[in-house]
Amino acid sequence: MQADIRRVGEILADSEDVLILTHKNPDGDCLGTGAALCRYLLSLGKRATVVNADPIPSKFDYLFEGLPQETFEPKCIVSVDVADPKLLGSLEDLADRVDLCIDHHISNTLYAKETHLCPDDGAAALSLYRIFRELGVAIDADMANALYTGLSTDTGCFRYSNANAECYRAAADLIELGADNAWINVKMFETKPLAQFQVLSDAFAGLRMYCDGKVSVLKISQAMLAQHAADTDTFDFVTAMSRQIEGVLCGITMKEQEDGSWKISLRTHEPLDASAICGLLGGGGHMRAAGCNAGPDEEASLQTLLSYIAEQLGCAL
Amino acid sequence: MQADIRRVGEILADSEDVLILTHKNPDGDCLGTGAALCRYLLSLGKRATVVNADPIPSKFDYLFEGLPQETFEPKCIVSVDVADPKLLGSLEDLADRVDLCIDHHISNTLYAKETHLCPDDGAAALSLYRIFRELGVAIDADMANALYTGLSTDTGCFRYSNANAECYRAAADLIELGADNAWINVKMFETKPLAQFQVLSDAFAGLRMYCDGKVSVLKISQAMLAQHAADTDTFDFVTAMSRQIEGVLCGITMKEQEDGSWKISLRTHEPLDASAICGLLGGGGHMRAAGCNAGPDEEASLQTLLSYIAEQLGCAL
Repeated sequence: MQADIRRVGEILADSEDVLILTHKNPDGDCLGTGAALCRYLLSLGKRATVVNADPIPSKFDYLFEGLPQETFEPKCIVSVDVADPKLLGSLEDLADRVDLCIDHHISNTLYAKETHLCPDDGAAALSLYRIFRELGVAIDADMANALYTGLSTDTGCFRYSNANAECYRAAADLIELGADNAWINVKMFETKPLAQFQVLSDAFAGLRMYCDGKVSVLKISQAMLAQHAADTDTFDFVTAMSRQIEGVLCGITMKEQEDGSWKISLRTHEPLDASAICGLLGGGGHMRAAGCNAGPDEEASLQTLLSYIAEQLGCAL
Repeated sequence: MQADIRRVGEILADSEDVLILTHKNPDGDCLGTGAALCRYLLSLGKRATVVNADPIPSKFDYLFEGLPQETFEPKCIVSVDVADPKLLGSLEDLADRVDLCIDHHISNTLYAKETHLCPDDGAAALSLYRIFRELGVAIDADMANALYTGLSTDTGCFRYSNANAECYRAAADLIELGADNAWINVKMFETKPLAQFQVLSDAFAGLRMYCDGKVSVLKISQAMLAQHAADTDTFDFVTAMSRQIEGVLCGITMKEQEDGSWKISLRTHEPLDASAICGLLGGGGHMRAAGCNAGPDEEASLQTLLSYIAEQLGCAL
């Protein structure tokens, strides 16, 4: 059942002992939205806490500063930015008891009893900001920081096409309400472990280019990660960089897993459909970002993809 | 003489055959602001053109699409985003004839006959947007793209502390007026020549760390640039990356010049004053970003800086 803002206001006003669920592999949007909602409920004198199936990376600690870490039997469960019960991870068995879900993913499975879904919003934080504004909620600096974090992280710091005018205007409002935008962005975007740069350096040292510079292949082995004591976030960093190479229409990143198997990530520009290409090996995803598992011979799997890409681009390998 | 917005409107309305000056080593803000102003003057039926002492990088071509490339004897000269006549490069002899300067640098030398200076603005494009809005100028999509480009590039895509609420709100307005924000940001921020990544890789392969990970040193030789046919923009890319290493309070980048001499760039976090450190070698700049020339033995110069930094941080080298 769809819950409009008036109904969301009722649910929150009537709630007691609220558990706020966020998705596994937590990001700035689910945590920022969760923290802002938690602070609002606490300001109403209710008990509330944010939970996640996974450890929360320490860079997000500021979102939860001063919040009580309570354990209690919830009387109301709200999920934020969680499109599918599977994304709750080890908390999935709570999915049937979710009273309200606030989300912005068009793929939301409507698993909650009531759902406030805004698929045009670039971040769940924008949906919650609109709720707060229409309900006349007093937003303090901590809430503003939390909501700004969601907006900024889910839009690549206002770079992506999901950063629409409303999103920028919400950010402006939140800055006026006390969000420390520059500090948050340094923390979220401008700070990476040295090991990630070292692995990036190693990966580029082995770069292969095909199709006259239109296709790049970077390979990251477990040995590289081990040598620099890098974590698997490094995969995302290198994959993001591969899409930034000028002239490259398809950036391929091959990532060795702990069990020795390989995953392949694709980032494409027009006219290449990353999802269709990865479909060749049973994978999938979006038009511009997709992935698949390589077979036992990862180089043979790469060749399968390269042959198809070369055909699509009408070029020799 | 300070020109308020009403006076700027008069000058522009009365102008004929307008030459718009931008600063050497042109960036998105001077070019975007210049292009938007040029389009406005053309819409009033005047002749106008944007000039620069240096070649304009091709990534900015879209700003000038459809603009006539005319040569004429100017009756009015306007400079945008130019704080000092020296920044006009080979066009410096026109400085005495500048009728109006629109700028946001507190360091503006007030060389123009009249100056509209807004030192709190994160970009000259924000100052011009405010002028347009208060004068009731009809902003079309091309003008919106140009102004958005200035806003975004001078604020690191809304990351830096100079991106205030007004800046975000202006961006929101410009998106509604037709600015293609996602396309512009991919072009400005997410596209870099392959050679830059290759030099970055080589530089990190030779990374040195001091003071328990608080100081990093990267060295870029002319040989590295030559090997990958990289341009000197690579220096900026590597310097920017050095500041993103987690835990590093001082990122030092040493850059060999074409004549074999070395320049040193510093990026710092609190408590290190980059300008004071570079002052040891006769250089200077800002608190968080500064530079200097190394002496004939660049490693000895580095040692001078490192010793001072270690003292400041109270650590052994």
